Amino acid sequence: MPAKIAINGYGTIGKRVADAISLQDDMEVVGVSKMSPNFEARLAIEKGYPLYATTKDVLPKFEQAGIKVHGTLDGLLEDADLVVDATPEESGFKPAYEKAGVKAIWQGGEEHSLTNLSFNAAANYAECLGAKFVRVPSCNTTGLIRTLYPLDVHFGIERVLAVMVRRATDPGDSKRGPINAIEPELEMPSHHGPDVQSVLPKLNIHTIAVKVPTTIMHLHAVSAVLKRKASVTEILDAWRRATRLKFVRGAEGVKSTAQIMEIARDLGRPRSDLYEIAVWDDGVHIVDGTQLYYFQAVHQESDVVPENVDAIRAMLKLETNGRKSIEKTNRALGIGG
Amino acid sequence: MPAKIAINGYGTIGKRVADAISLQDDMEVVGVSKMSPNFEARLAIEKGYPLYATTKDVLPKFEQAGIKVHGTLDGLLEDADLVVDATPEESGFKPAYEKAGVKAIWQGGEEHSLTNLSFNAAANYAECLGAKFVRVPSCNTTGLIRTLYPLDVHFGIERVLAVMVRRATDPGDSKRGPINAIEPELEMPSHHGPDVQSVLPKLNIHTIAVKVPTTIMHLHAVSAVLKRKASVTEILDAWRRATRLKFVRGAEGVKSTAQIMEIARDLGRPRSDLYEIAVWDDGVHIVDGTQLYYFQAVHQESDVVPENVDAIRAMLKLETNGRKSIEKTNRALGIGG
Amino acid sequence: MPAKIAINGYGTIGKRVADAISLQDDMEVVGVSKMSPNFEARLAIEKGYPLYATTKDVLPKFEQAGIKVHGTLDGLLEDADLVVDATPEESGFKPAYEKAGVKAIWQGGEEHSLTNLSFNAAANYAECLGAKFVRVPSCNTTGLIRTLYPLDVHFGIERVLAVMVRRATDPGDSKRGPINAIEPELEMPSHHGPDVQSVLPKLNIHTIAVKVPTTIMHLHAVSAVLKRKASVTEILDAWRRATRLKFVRGAEGVKSTAQIMEIARDLGRPRSDLYEIAVWDDGVHIVDGTQLYYFQAVHQESDVVPENVDAIRAMLKLETNGRKSIEKTNRALGIGG
Amino acid sequence: MPAKIAINGYGTIGKRVADAISLQDDMEVVGVSKMSPNFEARLAIEKGYPLYATTKDVLPKFEQAGIKVHGTLDGLLEDADLVVDATPEESGFKPAYEKAGVKAIWQGGEEHSLTNLSFNAAANYAECLGAKFVRVPSCNTTGLIRTLYPLDVHFGIERVLAVMVRRATDPGDSKRGPINAIEPELEMPSHHGPDVQSVLPKLNIHTIAVKVPTTIMHLHAVSAVLKRKASVTEILDAWRRATRLKFVRGAEGVKSTAQIMEIARDLGRPRSDLYEIAVWDDGVHIVDGTQLYYFQAVHQESDVVPENVDAIRAMLKLETNGRKSIEKTNRALGIGG
Repeated sequence: MPAKIAINGYGTIGKRVADAISLQDDMEVVGVSKMSPNFEARLAIEKGYPLYATTKDVLPKFEQAGIKVHGTLDGLLEDADLVVDATPEESGFKPAYEKAGVKAIWQGGEEHSLTNLSFNAAANYAECLGAKFVRVPSCNTTGLIRTLYPLDVHFGIERVLAVMVRRATDPGDSKRGPINAIEPELEMPSHHGPDVQSVLPKLNIHTIAVKVPTTIMHLHAVSAVLKRKASVTEILDAWRRATRLKFVRGAEGVKSTAQIMEIARDLGRPRSDLYEIAVWDDGVHIVDGTQLYYFQAVHQESDVVPENVDAIRAMLKLETNGRKSIEKTNRALGIGG
Repeated sequence: MPAKIAINGYGTIGKRVADAISLQDDMEVVGVSKMSPNFEARLAIEKGYPLYATTKDVLPKFEQAGIKVHGTLDGLLEDADLVVDATPEESGFKPAYEKAGVKAIWQGGEEHSLTNLSFNAAANYAECLGAKFVRVPSCNTTGLIRTLYPLDVHFGIERVLAVMVRRATDPGDSKRGPINAIEPELEMPSHHGPDVQSVLPKLNIHTIAVKVPTTIMHLHAVSAVLKRKASVTEILDAWRRATRLKFVRGAEGVKSTAQIMEIARDLGRPRSDLYEIAVWDDGVHIVDGTQLYYFQAVHQESDVVPENVDAIRAMLKLETNGRKSIEKTNRALGIGG
Repeated sequence: MPAKIAINGYGTIGKRVADAISLQDDMEVVGVSKMSPNFEARLAIEKGYPLYATTKDVLPKFEQAGIKVHGTLDGLLEDADLVVDATPEESGFKPAYEKAGVKAIWQGGEEHSLTNLSFNAAANYAECLGAKFVRVPSCNTTGLIRTLYPLDVHFGIERVLAVMVRRATDPGDSKRGPINAIEPELEMPSHHGPDVQSVLPKLNIHTIAVKVPTTIMHLHAVSAVLKRKASVTEILDAWRRATRLKFVRGAEGVKSTAQIMEIARDLGRPRSDLYEIAVWDDGVHIVDGTQLYYFQAVHQESDVVPENVDAIRAMLKLETNGRKSIEKTNRALGIGG
Repeated sequence: MPAKIAINGYGTIGKRVADAISLQDDMEVVGVSKMSPNFEARLAIEKGYPLYATTKDVLPKFEQAGIKVHGTLDGLLEDADLVVDATPEESGFKPAYEKAGVKAIWQGGEEHSLTNLSFNAAANYAECLGAKFVRVPSCNTTGLIRTLYPLDVHFGIERVLAVMVRRATDPGDSKRGPINAIEPELEMPSHHGPDVQSVLPKLNIHTIAVKVPTTIMHLHAVSAVLKRKASVTEILDAWRRATRLKFVRGAEGVKSTAQIMEIARDLGRPRSDLYEIAVWDDGVHIVDGTQLYYFQAVHQESDVVPENVDAIRAMLKLETNGRKSIEKTNRALGIGG
């Protein structure tokens, strides 16, 4: 019988994780909860997900909007083996999950200290086997781990400086800006470096973050000094043997994040998502043998989705071999290579 | 046996029409042609479309890029019953089509005078039965016809002023701006009014166009004076009986084109397209009985796609009843209502 | 002795009105008040304006930031003949002004009903002579009155439909969006029509508003039906005899609001402001003798600034002839023609 | 008698350099040349600059537009001691200048090899004394030299990595994008590093460039390893003793480039320019004693303007002491500190 998964927070990440779970044969969505009866609530019902109001307080809003719910989150948790928490950061549901005796996954908006266990399928699947509470780090952190972990394994990394040029808000939002400005995160190095270390504790990494007026993807400019000399070909080979990376080429007209998202649309992924981290293969350069530079682009709405699926599998021991879980998830989601 | 359709120009419109044709049971794509071997060319091959270079001149570019082609457009046309021309405006392929004796559909970048027959499935399917050359008007014109034609049929239209707030370029392009400006089309009334009249010759319509820094949708603010009094309910009813319209609600959080595109993504349409014209049902207002105001949003990349499919069916007489063709196309593309 | 003017709210409008007052010989700024000790507070002091904290509550914030103030608003009002209220809408200072017995001007964020007297220098200067409380309507309303009032005087206006394509936020803000969307104001006709009627009560006007991702200017597409026939030349002549309009030409490279703002910068206006409404003289079109179309662009940060100066002069009877006040203000601010 | 300066190319840089020269007492503008009779040509005449057509070919265009010129560039050069070339890159006027026997300054669009002498007032004024041909490097390069040169002098720089998040086009342009994408420069390290070395040949610097959808400023995230330990206070002190830097504070509401440009507007600079490089003083961080991180913002339209003035002075030996020239220029342009 498939594992029963609840989704608390049916927004950008929640709805994607729900759909991804639905495509697996060893888990199913038993319900999704929402705070407000907006268009996404209607679409959840159209998709066939049992809809729950998150709290009793908001039940009247759903009634007024004419949207029927199955009850509240508390009821939903009773039926679930595990809940994926995709609520805004610091929503504070941990006591509720503990009371219900349900395992839980949080997203990267939360601190590592909430779970003391942060997850990346390729890097530390085994550590999370059977865990009660796990956190999947943010889109940016996940993106950095995807390319840095294989480099560290194959060549050793002396130190990394990653500059993250971040999209300011998601495509479905129309409130936040900036419209015409660049906003640096004045705390520098930024908190993303320690966040990468929550999964790769020995990695010597500093990060810098800058927010820019775009909605579609983050772009990372990465500078890494390797412990041993490598050629661009060797670097690319190491990444080809890794998972959830997608190579693109400036020479084939992929000049910016606009064309990467166009590829994602052409690939026919749901919501035009790109689960993989996009790496320009003609944007990888080695100087003096060990100084590596590369660019990668991160689809902030979806790169953590397959990680959530794998985390469920590890925590519920549906599969004890990380490599096999990754392959199973990739196959179900149409992730190549 | 399915009708054999060639696609000349595998870009924004061409690739969508190709995919839509592939979903029909009475027609098939026999090949697509391209001028340059970019990432879209690779994806065409991955999708299984026979790829052709448009002209002999560009064959070496494809060879250099390691992309195999089946030949050139001339060869492709020999195998086709009809070609959908989705090349940039004034590309001048009409003589080639005439020489090959193949029927052809052009897009709205071309003048009405090229074919003297402009098509909208709901408005004039019958007029295009068996036609040799047909033009599907632009996304904006198609959008206006979708809502104005039913109003004209049910209530009569005295006069229309439509102000089109246009996206400046498509999402997959990163060259064009403006980044931070509004650009009016100083020719006013704009050419879009006469373009609507190419399908609805008796409609008294003026249009105004303004370009703004967004990529995702056009927005139309429409002011129409009706010949007879109508209520908002009657207007909405008339549109509900029409086709290829999608209602959205400000009250459910759909505040802008951002949320409409989010709905399209959630609906799981290929490339997150929205074939329907989106109309805010709480943005429809009647003043003094006959003065109607409403807002609609047009997904410029895809609203003409079902029209192209219906035009093929009319021209090749695969179906003589327009209503039935519309239903067939809608079913295949997942268009509701 | 020059009239003593206080500025409550030293932000986008307040700081500009302060500088404009400083350039007049019959009025002076006796102090400006602010709620928060940000960089604008420092610059106010550098400019030599006596700085006041708006309320007692915020005094500690100024102290912490090391910014000295002269006291609070209450003290400032005691020294003033008139206060220009440039605080956020519905800040509710009217009782304080009444208590202090000081005349007051509000900006367009407030309702007309707050003062029952809305001001435009060209249209109703005389009505506001000696008034205690006056409101200067918003940038959009002021912009519409600037071009419509002369048309109404010279040709008579049957009806107007103005579509306002609005900048989403000001250049100095980096919080608000949208970044990539168009947002219609679903209340349609919008409240701007009645606002124009607060100054021109007999004008038959409907307005429609749409928000777009730009910061620099609003653009208006105006459709007006005139009572008597007019040529484009006659229209332009009427506007040339009016005030605070600036003609620009598409044919000379002014394609968008970007080039208009570039002109303002080249003119050397403070803050690159444009007090005038910009009208494309090659964007004015007459159809069928009386149907007029034109585009105008409004610099939302500054077009009301000279109106505030004139309103002060009318209310304090520094000048009883509106025409003379306008000329005096224009000369001081470098507004030509 | 003031030195006679010609301006070839009256666009973004040319018009600013012309105005800056006009504010000096030891040089004057004898004429400006343009290729097209657009609104900037009209404004040049209004400002009183003798206007010349760049070539004979374009004379008819000026005539048609009704804009009178004094002749062509060849005539202008005869009257000039020095020409500031602000034409688009690779315009190829060097032979014309050599023929006319006039000294010349080029901008950063040209290669260093055109002059073999690149100029920064603080770093190498003395080297350019009496030089015939000099190049002022680009806005980005000038910006990096402004902060790195003092650091190198005071602390020694082991190595630098500067990531430049670049505005995609200038505010007065409405053609170029991207509207919603991030575009990396795939050549990495980018050409800006060697460009900095054209002035500071011994500096060990790599640069990375990314283009984003904004028009107002570039933002640099700089990582520098110093040769000897330094505190943040010492770093700031070194910069305070340097020139053409402006400190801003996140804590005072300067969160992004939007607020920096707002400050420039409030300072009353012509065209709202900011000649100084803006540095966040609460965005400077030292890790492990020698690893320095900081953010700076560059006003791409104007930071090179004072450098051009100083370069003229050095080349014509109007002043042999660089420090004195810098002070003189700063005073004339209102640059503080």
